[in-house]
Amino acid sequence: MNLKHFAGALALGTMMVMPLAAQAQEEETAVIGVSIPAATHGWAGGMNFHAQATIEALEERYENLDFVLSTASDPGQQVSDIEDMMATRNIDALVVLPFESEPLTGPVQRVKEEGKWVTVVDRGLSQENIEDLYVAGDNPGFGRVAGEYFVENMPDGGNIVVLRGIPTTIDNERVEAFEAAIEGSGIEVLGMEHGNWNRDDSFEVMQDFLSRYPEIDAVWASDDDMAVGALEAIAQAGREDEMWVLGGAGMKEMIQRVMDGDEQVPANVTYPPAMIGTAIELTALNFVSDVPVSGEFIIGSVLITQDNAEQYYFPDSPF
Amino acid sequence: MNLKHFAGALALGTMMVMPLAAQAQEEETAVIGVSIPAATHGWAGGMNFHAQATIEALEERYENLDFVLSTASDPGQQVSDIEDMMATRNIDALVVLPFESEPLTGPVQRVKEEGKWVTVVDRGLSQENIEDLYVAGDNPGFGRVAGEYFVENMPDGGNIVVLRGIPTTIDNERVEAFEAAIEGSGIEVLGMEHGNWNRDDSFEVMQDFLSRYPEIDAVWASDDDMAVGALEAIAQAGREDEMWVLGGAGMKEMIQRVMDGDEQVPANVTYPPAMIGTAIELTALNFVSDVPVSGEFIIGSVLITQDNAEQYYFPDSPF
Repeated sequence: MNLKHFAGALALGTMMVMPLAAQAQEEETAVIGVSIPAATHGWAGGMNFHAQATIEALEERYENLDFVLSTASDPGQQVSDIEDMMATRNIDALVVLPFESEPLTGPVQRVKEEGKWVTVVDRGLSQENIEDLYVAGDNPGFGRVAGEYFVENMPDGGNIVVLRGIPTTIDNERVEAFEAAIEGSGIEVLGMEHGNWNRDDSFEVMQDFLSRYPEIDAVWASDDDMAVGALEAIAQAGREDEMWVLGGAGMKEMIQRVMDGDEQVPANVTYPPAMIGTAIELTALNFVSDVPVSGEFIIGSVLITQDNAEQYYFPDSPF
Repeated sequence: MNLKHFAGALALGTMMVMPLAAQAQEEETAVIGVSIPAATHGWAGGMNFHAQATIEALEERYENLDFVLSTASDPGQQVSDIEDMMATRNIDALVVLPFESEPLTGPVQRVKEEGKWVTVVDRGLSQENIEDLYVAGDNPGFGRVAGEYFVENMPDGGNIVVLRGIPTTIDNERVEAFEAAIEGSGIEVLGMEHGNWNRDDSFEVMQDFLSRYPEIDAVWASDDDMAVGALEAIAQAGREDEMWVLGGAGMKEMIQRVMDGDEQVPANVTYPPAMIGTAIELTALNFVSDVPVSGEFIIGSVLITQDNAEQYYFPDSPF
């Protein structure tokens, strides 16, 4: 009884002396804008799926958060999406995966200069230290984890071929870490060519490998789109039983094969489009908790095998 | 009506065909163990406060998560705390801030080998790639942000003295980044000595600086405990009006002075003990969401001024 009475008195007192700013904060809803490239398939399609799924989960979990999601088909549209979010929705935070670094740097910097929280995902801006939080994948880790898988699964060495992506820093970091991981293992890289993260290019590169090398034990396709092209070339050559293929990024058709125990596709390495979800979750925490979430989060590349494939399989995602 | 009927049928169908594993997952509660050094004051005291506060918030937010918190007063006790968590609480994940790296590496590795999720905070283990997630502070950023504050607030240059921590990699990284940030600014470092993150040592170092240098415009104390010692020496010399002091880490007495607009303590730089809360939040997300949370999160060091000090002030924390 006493306690109850005291609580009532306290509540009244608090109401009366509460400054205006604190009152506003109690009722305030934070608005988080999310601006990403549009896509219906591939990695970007998965990224769109996970952005929407995370926003739905967070709108249910946190009453005082609202979200605005914009998907842009070119950098110019992304710039005007962001300007719209500022002008008409008065966002408190922006989570942005830049279509391209250069054209987005100025507009995102202006958002920051207005005092808004800024989270940048995957592709960095052209200038450092604009954003509060940067979330990105781990390219050296992607190559290292793949290399370690080859070493563990080829204890007596063997012959492999490698498909590389588009010549970029990203691709160099992945390949260098892969090479470091297999060094001294007795694994011989017969050939290494650029499949440019493209199915058709990779189909042709793999056809060339198959015609040149009579004995190939395994393929590091280093990306699931390249793996699709390589697998098609292997199938057409009728050499499915000779070699296994390790792709990467977690395309659901590949994860399905890993889950099913397909010996030709025994594993995968993550470079998860769901990292957009991590970025949105952390941005939300800035408004609903006291924990610090500024800084740089490099999402690890994880090995997927039959044991853990289920948790990386998203049947409703296009990717 | 049709839709409703369909939904009912679907629900029943789902119930009947749901495999046992999925059923178990629905009801399953994940148990997260948190093992940290004990403390009643200082940075570790703040870390204990934020660990408890975050666990309370998460237990309220997520019904299917349970937490076990252990605080150890030496590395041996921490090892047995972790062994207890495994043996008697069957934890699904461990969040650990190691007392020391060496004695904790083996025990934490055994937790990982049992298939549990492992998050390591602040102090790394002696061996790489054991943990799923590593959360730590940004030492170069801590020095850079401090240096940038000096440059911005001493546009015409000036004389400063610097207190360093215990000779360690951490201290070197901080000081090197500070020096890089003030390079070419016209700021002259009159003296730089080790105060060893200790109030008494810093009091003596500052007394020595004060007797040697008749004109000091500002002090980079580089840590709030060292700032307390330096401020006491300045007060005893009666030179409070001559120089301002920048500490760091966000001790609440210092944040209070920043909030109050104290000209002698105009700012602070975070190295937040609340990073333990970030680590616990991310570990929780591994069990309640599909977003990837493995990897390495370096929590940024943020400048605190009168404008934003309130959000870094935790009156109930001992730190």
